[in-house]
Amino acid sequence: MVARRRRLRVRWRTSLGLVGIVLRYLSVTLVVPLLVALYYGEDVLVFAVTIVVTVAVGTLLERLDPDPDLGPREGLLMVALTWLAVAGIGTLPYLLAGMGTESTLRYPTNALFESMSGFTTTGATVMGDISFDSHSHALLLWRQLTQWLGGMGIVVLAVAILPELSVGGAQLMDAEAPGPSLEKLTPRIAETARVLWLAYLGLTVLEIVLLYALHRGGLAPNMDFYNAVSHGLTTMPTGGFSPEARSIEAFSAAVQWVIVPFMVAAGVNFALVWRVVTGSPERLVRDSEFRTYLGLLGVLSALGALLLFTGDGLATDSALVGGEYLADLREAVVGDAERSLRDAVFQFVSLMTTTGYASTDFNAWSESTKYLLLVAMFVGGSAGSTGGAIKVVRWLVIVKALRRELFTTAHPEAVRPVRLGGRVVDERAVRGIFAFTLLYFVLFVVGVGVLLVDANRFEYTLSAFEAMSAVAATLGNVGPGFGSVGPMGSYLGFSGFSKLFMVFLMWIGRLEIIPVLVLLTGGYWRS
Amino acid sequence: MVARRRRLRVRWRTSLGLVGIVLRYLSVTLVVPLLVALYYGEDVLVFAVTIVVTVAVGTLLERLDPDPDLGPREGLLMVALTWLAVAGIGTLPYLLAGMGTESTLRYPTNALFESMSGFTTTGATVMGDISFDSHSHALLLWRQLTQWLGGMGIVVLAVAILPELSVGGAQLMDAEAPGPSLEKLTPRIAETARVLWLAYLGLTVLEIVLLYALHRGGLAPNMDFYNAVSHGLTTMPTGGFSPEARSIEAFSAAVQWVIVPFMVAAGVNFALVWRVVTGSPERLVRDSEFRTYLGLLGVLSALGALLLFTGDGLATDSALVGGEYLADLREAVVGDAERSLRDAVFQFVSLMTTTGYASTDFNAWSESTKYLLLVAMFVGGSAGSTGGAIKVVRWLVIVKALRRELFTTAHPEAVRPVRLGGRVVDERAVRGIFAFTLLYFVLFVVGVGVLLVDANRFEYTLSAFEAMSAVAATLGNVGPGFGSVGPMGSYLGFSGFSKLFMVFLMWIGRLEIIPVLVLLTGGYWRS
Repeated sequence: MVARRRRLRVRWRTSLGLVGIVLRYLSVTLVVPLLVALYYGEDVLVFAVTIVVTVAVGTLLERLDPDPDLGPREGLLMVALTWLAVAGIGTLPYLLAGMGTESTLRYPTNALFESMSGFTTTGATVMGDISFDSHSHALLLWRQLTQWLGGMGIVVLAVAILPELSVGGAQLMDAEAPGPSLEKLTPRIAETARVLWLAYLGLTVLEIVLLYALHRGGLAPNMDFYNAVSHGLTTMPTGGFSPEARSIEAFSAAVQWVIVPFMVAAGVNFALVWRVVTGSPERLVRDSEFRTYLGLLGVLSALGALLLFTGDGLATDSALVGGEYLADLREAVVGDAERSLRDAVFQFVSLMTTTGYASTDFNAWSESTKYLLLVAMFVGGSAGSTGGAIKVVRWLVIVKALRRELFTTAHPEAVRPVRLGGRVVDERAVRGIFAFTLLYFVLFVVGVGVLLVDANRFEYTLSAFEAMSAVAATLGNVGPGFGSVGPMGSYLGFSGFSKLFMVFLMWIGRLEIIPVLVLLTGGYWRS
Repeated sequence: MVARRRRLRVRWRTSLGLVGIVLRYLSVTLVVPLLVALYYGEDVLVFAVTIVVTVAVGTLLERLDPDPDLGPREGLLMVALTWLAVAGIGTLPYLLAGMGTESTLRYPTNALFESMSGFTTTGATVMGDISFDSHSHALLLWRQLTQWLGGMGIVVLAVAILPELSVGGAQLMDAEAPGPSLEKLTPRIAETARVLWLAYLGLTVLEIVLLYALHRGGLAPNMDFYNAVSHGLTTMPTGGFSPEARSIEAFSAAVQWVIVPFMVAAGVNFALVWRVVTGSPERLVRDSEFRTYLGLLGVLSALGALLLFTGDGLATDSALVGGEYLADLREAVVGDAERSLRDAVFQFVSLMTTTGYASTDFNAWSESTKYLLLVAMFVGGSAGSTGGAIKVVRWLVIVKALRRELFTTAHPEAVRPVRLGGRVVDERAVRGIFAFTLLYFVLFVVGVGVLLVDANRFEYTLSAFEAMSAVAATLGNVGPGFGSVGPMGSYLGFSGFSKLFMVFLMWIGRLEIIPVLVLLTGGYWRS
């Protein structure tokens, strides 16, 4: 055993041991659904057992006695394993609560899908029936909570609160935190992580308060306290799970308009949010990623609103939503400025920030509008936000690098660095961004092929466009797609293999591909 | 005027003057359809007038007295303008022959589409009725001939035969010849161009001879001499125009099998072909691009054949081809090894090499198989071949660069160049390939949006998948797509704006994007 470990040179014990520490702290968060279970008197045993198992596994792994001084490879391994372990633990409440019921989550593949979808803040679901008739308040709250925990990153949380990890922390945040670069707000990395979590927590609480205030003010009859908390927990992580089967369509226009700015904020770099809150609001205007982010949201929303307002943006006939829904929608949207603007803004903000809420069944939209939604799914949020997908800063660097390429074609003698916010971007970083984006596309293209061939094999209907939306939505941690995986549908109809494949996509997408793919190369394991 | 010219510093007169020379030589090739017109006694005046106009325009432009010493910018401008000018001249026969008839090509937009599709070797058509009832033999031969002329590149032809251009020739071939690098086979660039054309001409003649031999041998009843020449002229340039409305489906299995190796050869680097012919066949095995190219063709064909053989690769119902066609196809293909192998090999070779012939209406294939075809359209042929799209060598460099990126993530201290065929690829070239590929995707994504929104505006039905296939097929110079633009359909149903947009896509795709986009940047026009 010793000889084998030496040859590999990657210190498994260190990585697994650190996973154990994270799990032990995850067990603390499980107290929240346990309290809810006690309050409603449902599923108490489910969460009690889950806590015991989590503590036991965490403690066992911790015994491996991790060395807190991480190398880059141990950091990558630890982060990849943590997300697998957390998603694994997350299946327990679904499996235990599902025993002896008709819940679709009683099957391990479905439970893993739902759990991975939660922690990666994807928001894709395989729940057959989302209602309190079939599931307890505690279980649905746990589903919401997984997104909130996954949002800013389990590992960033661990770094923020665990002194054991503070030495290797920078390495870990590098591998996990969303986006290509994470600004250091404070000299100590653990301090930075704490600051990010504080901004995250603050905005979450603010949203819950506002939503509940709407309810008390009579503007949102069904946004009770439970719903306010549930949606607060799934907006800021750009998650998109909702205890309502029809997502945000179930709520009033006021609720929809209030949720929009929080989805927008969730896609902003949290370091920037922190700077703005602590007294430097001029930073917002100066930040080129933020300007581009808002610009893209604005252009897509405006184009969508125009298409909806004229009626061009709605399907002419759609078997997907039913003729009555489509007729009602056409009646309500076409020629109504507020409604078409609201639907477009909500939906483009939701899918571009990779939140995944729906305020309308966009299966009833035309191919052009749905295509724009698909494109938005590839944009993503800002670096250092909770949004997934490719992210705005990468697109910004890509556009600048492409312009540079065109310039040097006409002027071969010119030497021109790529600049962002006045600073020169390192050529290695430019290369890394190109590589990431192409890898993202390659994974997308391969993924669509896998789903389509698998659908043929098991003989269920899946159009290429549907499959594209499913892959974009899982790889980008968005949530809903089109057709059967539309905002009011679910991923339940896929084969077990396809579901496991999408679990892989959510996992690799959340970790921004490279940390996972590296583990699959021979070079990683050689010294 | 002089002040203005000095400020711009780009020498328009030089570029335009060189375009004039190319046009004058183009007029010589117009003698071929003129002779055919005389033989059949149809459309003689059409080609006589076209020749006169071409000579006149060419001579006028030549009067601008070009300076043969080209800078990089004049080279780019000249190449971009040449393709526009040639496509413009190419519309004359369609317009003149269409006057007073019901031909769809009597409209300038359609004529320009067909002409650009010809010269760029795309093979997409807007002809309403492809038959000798509506069009003369001479006109259809001209349509075939535009592809043959465009195949190895009008400008490479000019360099090969025009002493006036030999000084600036290397610059021109750089901007135009397909693929990122062109091996110099002989010290003088004009000599290289001649050698490439000789290989091209030789293979074309060989194919015509073989096809006609099949006819004489009784294995291809309808492959008469006219048809043999027509298909010889459109295979080697990876063109895909056919005087038969149902493309290669109209011919026997023997014809289909004979055409396959020529499509494969058309996608091979012609410098490699030349080396093999002149006695170094071992080069083939050593060439990593060739191995990858064959490998990709093999894998896609095998996967396709397997899907067709089992029946999974065929649609279960398809409004696009009609129930009878689908039932007959299922009857013929499922369980028949030769037929399913032939259909798959022919179609994947045709679309990956960007030829665009069809031996079956693949609208009747399932979504998974069609999706694989769409993916193949992005692969393309080899560098230095007549095939379009992204090209195999770029994918090879991308895969190697991505592997390097993964390696350096685990080993940040490592410095690793990208190697191809034992030689180190310059980092600037790697960057250029990344940039090109991303630009290609960006153009694709934007293009699909344009077609879809335009379809909504003019209220014709266009699915997102159809639009994707149309953009991939025009930008990659492939030809047919799916649905209405399927192999037995046409691009006639699009709006005028969409057609002009696709003319732009064919043009920019044929010139590999960057030479055209450069002209649209401010940096190009500054000194």
